[in-house]
Amino acid sequence: MKVTLERNHLLKSLSHVHRVVERRNTYPILANVLFKASDDHVELRATDLDIEVTESVPAMVSTPGTTTVPAHTLYEIVRKLADGAEVRLETDGGENMVLTSGRSRFNLACLSPDSFPDLKSGAFAHEFDVSAALLRELIERTQFAISNEETRYYLNGIYFHAVDNSQTGPLFRAVATDGHRMARAEIAAPEGARGMSGIIVPKKTVGEVQKLLDGVDGDVHVEVSDTKIRFTVGPVVLLSKLIEGTFPDYDRVTPKNNDKQMLVDRGAFAVAVDRVSTIASDRGGKAVKLQAHDGLLELSVTNPDHGTASEELAVDFDIDAFEIGFNARYLLDIISQIRSESAVFLFNDANSPTLVKEEGEANALYVLMPMRV
Amino acid sequence: MKVTLERNHLLKSLSHVHRVVERRNTYPILANVLFKASDDHVELRATDLDIEVTESVPAMVSTPGTTTVPAHTLYEIVRKLADGAEVRLETDGGENMVLTSGRSRFNLACLSPDSFPDLKSGAFAHEFDVSAALLRELIERTQFAISNEETRYYLNGIYFHAVDNSQTGPLFRAVATDGHRMARAEIAAPEGARGMSGIIVPKKTVGEVQKLLDGVDGDVHVEVSDTKIRFTVGPVVLLSKLIEGTFPDYDRVTPKNNDKQMLVDRGAFAVAVDRVSTIASDRGGKAVKLQAHDGLLELSVTNPDHGTASEELAVDFDIDAFEIGFNARYLLDIISQIRSESAVFLFNDANSPTLVKEEGEANALYVLMPMRV
Repeated sequence: MKVTLERNHLLKSLSHVHRVVERRNTYPILANVLFKASDDHVELRATDLDIEVTESVPAMVSTPGTTTVPAHTLYEIVRKLADGAEVRLETDGGENMVLTSGRSRFNLACLSPDSFPDLKSGAFAHEFDVSAALLRELIERTQFAISNEETRYYLNGIYFHAVDNSQTGPLFRAVATDGHRMARAEIAAPEGARGMSGIIVPKKTVGEVQKLLDGVDGDVHVEVSDTKIRFTVGPVVLLSKLIEGTFPDYDRVTPKNNDKQMLVDRGAFAVAVDRVSTIASDRGGKAVKLQAHDGLLELSVTNPDHGTASEELAVDFDIDAFEIGFNARYLLDIISQIRSESAVFLFNDANSPTLVKEEGEANALYVLMPMRV
Repeated sequence: MKVTLERNHLLKSLSHVHRVVERRNTYPILANVLFKASDDHVELRATDLDIEVTESVPAMVSTPGTTTVPAHTLYEIVRKLADGAEVRLETDGGENMVLTSGRSRFNLACLSPDSFPDLKSGAFAHEFDVSAALLRELIERTQFAISNEETRYYLNGIYFHAVDNSQTGPLFRAVATDGHRMARAEIAAPEGARGMSGIIVPKKTVGEVQKLLDGVDGDVHVEVSDTKIRFTVGPVVLLSKLIEGTFPDYDRVTPKNNDKQMLVDRGAFAVAVDRVSTIASDRGGKAVKLQAHDGLLELSVTNPDHGTASEELAVDFDIDAFEIGFNARYLLDIISQIRSESAVFLFNDANSPTLVKEEGEANALYVLMPMRV
């Protein structure tokens, strides 16, 4: 293999593919990025056996060929090369790749491309185009609620599925939950996604896709099978395994009859929760108590180690004496999702899940389990 | 105690004193900040038994008194209060301090001020004023070379002392070393510092003083005894124990006869060292080899795990074949200290300490031990 590339092109592609490479690997080949040079481009590929990212970089190919080199080391080297520099890559039969650029010269150990794993995609049952902005929105709205508990592996991702809705037309919905809170967001279902049954996209994949979508306009092409999903974002193709498992029936835990509605200024509420939770610690005081009386909402935290904190806010709430407690961190996570001036809380009672959403027509809703206070 | 303060004043003082408080403390009282309200101010004080920081805040004192409250919690609370808000602090006999501000109310557990430690200053043998800018310079130039090895406790700080010099007049010098590299910086000795024998100021104190000096113009008042040092920076007083021990005779290891002079462009050299050290790892390749020949300097790193890296630079060097190795990290630390366009290297041979300094009259010099390559 003998190729010449523009440093900035190579850096951009490496920045996409190297991220998927884990820092520690059981198999040395997984630390490497695969180079396939042919015609007028080099294809780069990296994988962690669950996700595979592929991208083509324009190149002057003098001798076509294939090799693999350490992904993170190569990324760091290319990152440190001068902006706009020319980079020459050349293999000497197999064991080494020589990188030269200006007065810099690197000799990197290669591994044979023969053992580089291939995450075969198989056939896809559904495919559709979705705007990058809307996909980004679905991820941003729900990602924070993904569970990190490995024993509940079926919650370690975002659940995407198509929903029939006679009023709005078919919807495409994203749901994440860790059992304490749930986030749900939806958009009009893209053509091709209709009738798609539920899939669980792993947290790491969600994060990688989110980074790929950063600053992207236009559409993303999505293909889905029973076991895999493939995103094509411009020149980058990300193929990922899906989580095999059954996502819980989230609709069953979504409150339908919460009729106690409270409107609160989002900004003031966030500041107040943040302030009173200052005295919380790992040992105590994780719960914020909300007490409504006489048009005021009192937020308070009690931590036996540190003391107490309380704060009052004006609210729009008809019920006169109401009291409920929430995990301060979860409450802040959800309130920071609200983009309207006011946040709408819909309570049932102090032991039942509470609904939180934006004012007016909201395409996202949040469910929060109360804590005893 | 019953006082009213301006939130911004209180925050500024707390930000100075709370930093000295460790996150984990054997004695609960050390987690607290001492409040002493009298006349028209509140004195705040915090300590870790090695450093004590004291600052006065203007206040409306309704009832004078003394108490102690958790430093980090209070700092976080005050930080989250609104800019320009008024803060009222009130103790109810002893066990609690109530903080109110706007619609916020906090109840914080107090500890009796009786057991709050006092780092008695004793009498000072020397005192002098030094410009904040020059003191900052002495610290910035040497701090990076302080040793973190606890067994060599006498290297865990900056050594300050006065030096007689018949040419320049008396000097005030700062020195730090970890046995692998040494940094030395000097200024004209302030009146009062002359004849001062050497003191070792601990690393944590150096860091705190540096933060206090940030953005400060004018002079700092310094007082020194055999066991303590006191800095007065505006309203803040920092008293610290000194490290008891003997600083090594650094002059003995400062090369006097290094006559092989090499001039190299600082920026290009730093970029090159950074680039070739990309392939270094914890297991190997920490050394950068410098080879001079034909007006060129070749920098190279060999890491058996990763490969090799090399880079060439134009240099101004009379010796034709010279070779030496340095720890890449240490070399970068020193080169980043150089502010002139070129860095001056003064070599003896590949096994002897090398001198690095700025072009022209330099008030700082750096000594670096070579590594076998």
